[in-house]
Amino acid sequence: VAALREIVEQLGGELIGDAALRIDRIETLDSATPQAIAFLANPRYRAQLDTTAAGCVIVAPALRDAAAARGAVIVTADPYLYYARLTQWWAARTRAAVPAGIHPSALVDPSARLAAGVSIGALAVIEAGAEIGAGVSIGAHSYVGQGARIGAGTRLHARVTFHERCAIGERGVIHSGAVIGADGFGFAPSKSGWQKIEQLGAVVIGDDVDIGANTCIDRGALGDTLIGNDVKLDNLIQVGHNVRIGDHTAIAGCVGIAGSAVIGRHVMIGGAAMISGHLEIADHVNISGGTLVSHTIAKAGHYTGVFPIAENASWVKNAATLRQLHTMRERLRSLEERLPRTTATDDGPHDDDRDDKRA
Amino acid sequence: VAALREIVEQLGGELIGDAALRIDRIETLDSATPQAIAFLANPRYRAQLDTTAAGCVIVAPALRDAAAARGAVIVTADPYLYYARLTQWWAARTRAAVPAGIHPSALVDPSARLAAGVSIGALAVIEAGAEIGAGVSIGAHSYVGQGARIGAGTRLHARVTFHERCAIGERGVIHSGAVIGADGFGFAPSKSGWQKIEQLGAVVIGDDVDIGANTCIDRGALGDTLIGNDVKLDNLIQVGHNVRIGDHTAIAGCVGIAGSAVIGRHVMIGGAAMISGHLEIADHVNISGGTLVSHTIAKAGHYTGVFPIAENASWVKNAATLRQLHTMRERLRSLEERLPRTTATDDGPHDDDRDDKRA
Amino acid sequence: VAALREIVEQLGGELIGDAALRIDRIETLDSATPQAIAFLANPRYRAQLDTTAAGCVIVAPALRDAAAARGAVIVTADPYLYYARLTQWWAARTRAAVPAGIHPSALVDPSARLAAGVSIGALAVIEAGAEIGAGVSIGAHSYVGQGARIGAGTRLHARVTFHERCAIGERGVIHSGAVIGADGFGFAPSKSGWQKIEQLGAVVIGDDVDIGANTCIDRGALGDTLIGNDVKLDNLIQVGHNVRIGDHTAIAGCVGIAGSAVIGRHVMIGGAAMISGHLEIADHVNISGGTLVSHTIAKAGHYTGVFPIAENASWVKNAATLRQLHTMRERLRSLEERLPRTTATDDGPHDDDRDDKRA
Repeated sequence: VAALREIVEQLGGELIGDAALRIDRIETLDSATPQAIAFLANPRYRAQLDTTAAGCVIVAPALRDAAAARGAVIVTADPYLYYARLTQWWAARTRAAVPAGIHPSALVDPSARLAAGVSIGALAVIEAGAEIGAGVSIGAHSYVGQGARIGAGTRLHARVTFHERCAIGERGVIHSGAVIGADGFGFAPSKSGWQKIEQLGAVVIGDDVDIGANTCIDRGALGDTLIGNDVKLDNLIQVGHNVRIGDHTAIAGCVGIAGSAVIGRHVMIGGAAMISGHLEIADHVNISGGTLVSHTIAKAGHYTGVFPIAENASWVKNAATLRQLHTMRERLRSLEERLPRTTATDDGPHDDDRDDKRA
Repeated sequence: VAALREIVEQLGGELIGDAALRIDRIETLDSATPQAIAFLANPRYRAQLDTTAAGCVIVAPALRDAAAARGAVIVTADPYLYYARLTQWWAARTRAAVPAGIHPSALVDPSARLAAGVSIGALAVIEAGAEIGAGVSIGAHSYVGQGARIGAGTRLHARVTFHERCAIGERGVIHSGAVIGADGFGFAPSKSGWQKIEQLGAVVIGDDVDIGANTCIDRGALGDTLIGNDVKLDNLIQVGHNVRIGDHTAIAGCVGIAGSAVIGRHVMIGGAAMISGHLEIADHVNISGGTLVSHTIAKAGHYTGVFPIAENASWVKNAATLRQLHTMRERLRSLEERLPRTTATDDGPHDDDRDDKRA
Repeated sequence: VAALREIVEQLGGELIGDAALRIDRIETLDSATPQAIAFLANPRYRAQLDTTAAGCVIVAPALRDAAAARGAVIVTADPYLYYARLTQWWAARTRAAVPAGIHPSALVDPSARLAAGVSIGALAVIEAGAEIGAGVSIGAHSYVGQGARIGAGTRLHARVTFHERCAIGERGVIHSGAVIGADGFGFAPSKSGWQKIEQLGAVVIGDDVDIGANTCIDRGALGDTLIGNDVKLDNLIQVGHNVRIGDHTAIAGCVGIAGSAVIGRHVMIGGAAMISGHLEIADHVNISGGTLVSHTIAKAGHYTGVFPIAENASWVKNAATLRQLHTMRERLRSLEERLPRTTATDDGPHDDDRDDKRA
């Protein structure tokens, strides 16, 4: 529980209304009670401002008057960012603190180096030579391999696997089930079958990186897999060996990135997209969910490749026709040749009618 | 081993043939031996009835005579359901019982409340304030967070992560590697990079829910992620924060469901489908595998969006042509204008020729 | 560190240049230093041979002279295979040995049978009746269920789940987070909801199989899920119940294979492909990444089904048009009928113009 006065003292913003009003939770506009604080960031929810029961609403300056007419308001330039900071402050006040120190059931190799304020959970295993920075929290059942390095303030939730010689910077978060540093997928064909290419590199991760549950980042074959600063990875993502991901890039769940792909900075990749190996994606590219990226994207922009959903009966007809699309183009060209344009607007052969093999 | 007499005593059905015949396994029609019982549920396997070596066959009434002509038969209205119940009875008779009590290596916080008949496996960790219902089984290496609630009769297999304050109802099953209650994927952009939106909600799961191996269900940002009763989730599924899934819905492996999607009751989603966020899927919708659902589906039915597979050389030609599809439509329209219909069947401009932006 | 002389003594090949040259790492051509050895296998990197700083280069006979002109060379028929074997030899020399014996914190049931030279990591759990072959290594936090069998020389990395009665052959590798033998996804509908079909089979895996991080292989419903010899599975793959995968098949990350699919030998499946259930894929088939295989593929070859990526604005237009593709075909046919061919080359109705429902 917090009074509105405390909130603006901590987080700033202009408060209009009863500074003593006590808030007991953060809610969305449509589910808020009079004891809740809510925020309006997306114009699509503007109408909810008139109907919400929230005790206080966080809005942008343009909505100051409309919001103040209904009750307490915090006015701020970026309500969504204010909401993010409010959740951080709220969580710090309300969540149970991670217990300090090493749980007696944890197994920490004597040669591991632990900085001040480290928390090691129940049954965690820390192998020889690992370096654990100040204020790091290692969850129950987590595993940190030989010579791995965990930067100050980083948190591994329960049941993380962080393999030998890999490194992560400061203030990172790794969620449960993530596997950092398993072998990349590399085999050479031979007469007697596949020959394993031992993966001699590691994974090197920057500062402020979040890694989702059950996400995998493979170690490099030669050289390292590199994840930049402020990269955000959702759950169940596969990052292949020797991939490089630039700073501030955010990737949604179920994405696969094949080996040696180079992803730029500030890239956004939607859920279940698939990135082929040995290609580059430029800075500030946005890939729609479900899209397969099969070649380099050299220019910033928004790219998509998804078969549109339809009622199944309609899809069956269109998909069947699609198998004949190339033939349809030939038939169309043939018709055009038999029915020549006769006016001055005739622009000759269609430029776009070449056999484009870039698909 | 069981005599046919025991099976029908337990599970019902009309037995024709030798009630003393002893069965030592359940098999498919094509692999069954004379000591096996098999079932015929799918008409497509009807021919196997004449060739199977099974000692007994479970069939629907329409096949009573054909089946009886070849040997022992159990006749029942729904052979597939009978088969399901037979496997349950069989498993209960033949599987090793889960050992009762708390394994001495498990770490159970003194403030956790355990009902009668609970089984806690080796090296499991149960945190403070957790509530474990009657007859619950927690597998080896599993983790149950602070204040989590596990309903009566639910089973967590080895190595499940069930985070703080999350809840599951009765008779559920969670398979190994599943992560319930990791943080949802929420960040607000700021000048200095992504700002984490702390995920303050939890995951609340109903009764009779099965959750597959390495599946992830994220906790809500504000409010909870909600899974209804009798929901069945296969392996490696991602369920984002604040998703709601209705009762009796079944979802196959590798599906991703983005944040705040609302899935109805009795929905079926095929493998590797991807559901975008902030949309609704009506009750009784069936989504084909591999389909991306990008907008609300308001009407029951079967929906698909998948590029049809073809030999690669054929695909290359069709995919290249597809990039020009909009241009082809223009060319087709141009041809139609130059070759006007002259008969009474002319039906004017094509209604479907508008520029449909709903894709 | 190794002298070139040692390398060719161990691995063969023709050495040209200073046999005493000492190498301290393996690198790619473009990042190699004078102390590194690199290889040239892909002709597309041929130009790097002239610019690399590598102290020694592994090449095929055709490039002997070009390579020798710049420094030390190892000439071998298959440079990529030579590289694979070099990484193996290098790893064996440089990696810390897995500690022999049973870690004191591991829980090994007295009825489990352990052959000579077994290594069991910290907090691993080995259940009753498990059989662990000679030289097997079981990583920290791994779980081996009742009656499971692990063949000689196989390695389970940290945190593998290998369930009861499943088996793997010799020289296998299973990476962290993999779950072998969770229940297949089987439920029968009933008036009161889904009825679980207990999964009575197991998973049986051949020799020389690699299984990636967080990959799942479900146990069979009746009969077993079967993985052949020398099968290579990348990370985050889902293999459903009663799937059969033939020898030497390699499958990239994020692939899903639904129940009872039968995959042949020497098949290659690209990342994020999805294989429907109850179908067959012939030997030597190559499936492109992102492709959904919805019906049996009876003939070797390369198959693809992916919507080509484009700038979003272009995709919107083409996808919208795609929804009308069947209608466009009708319009095209109508135009052809109104403008009949008049020459001797007229070949009558188009064979490919049937309503193909195979999509």
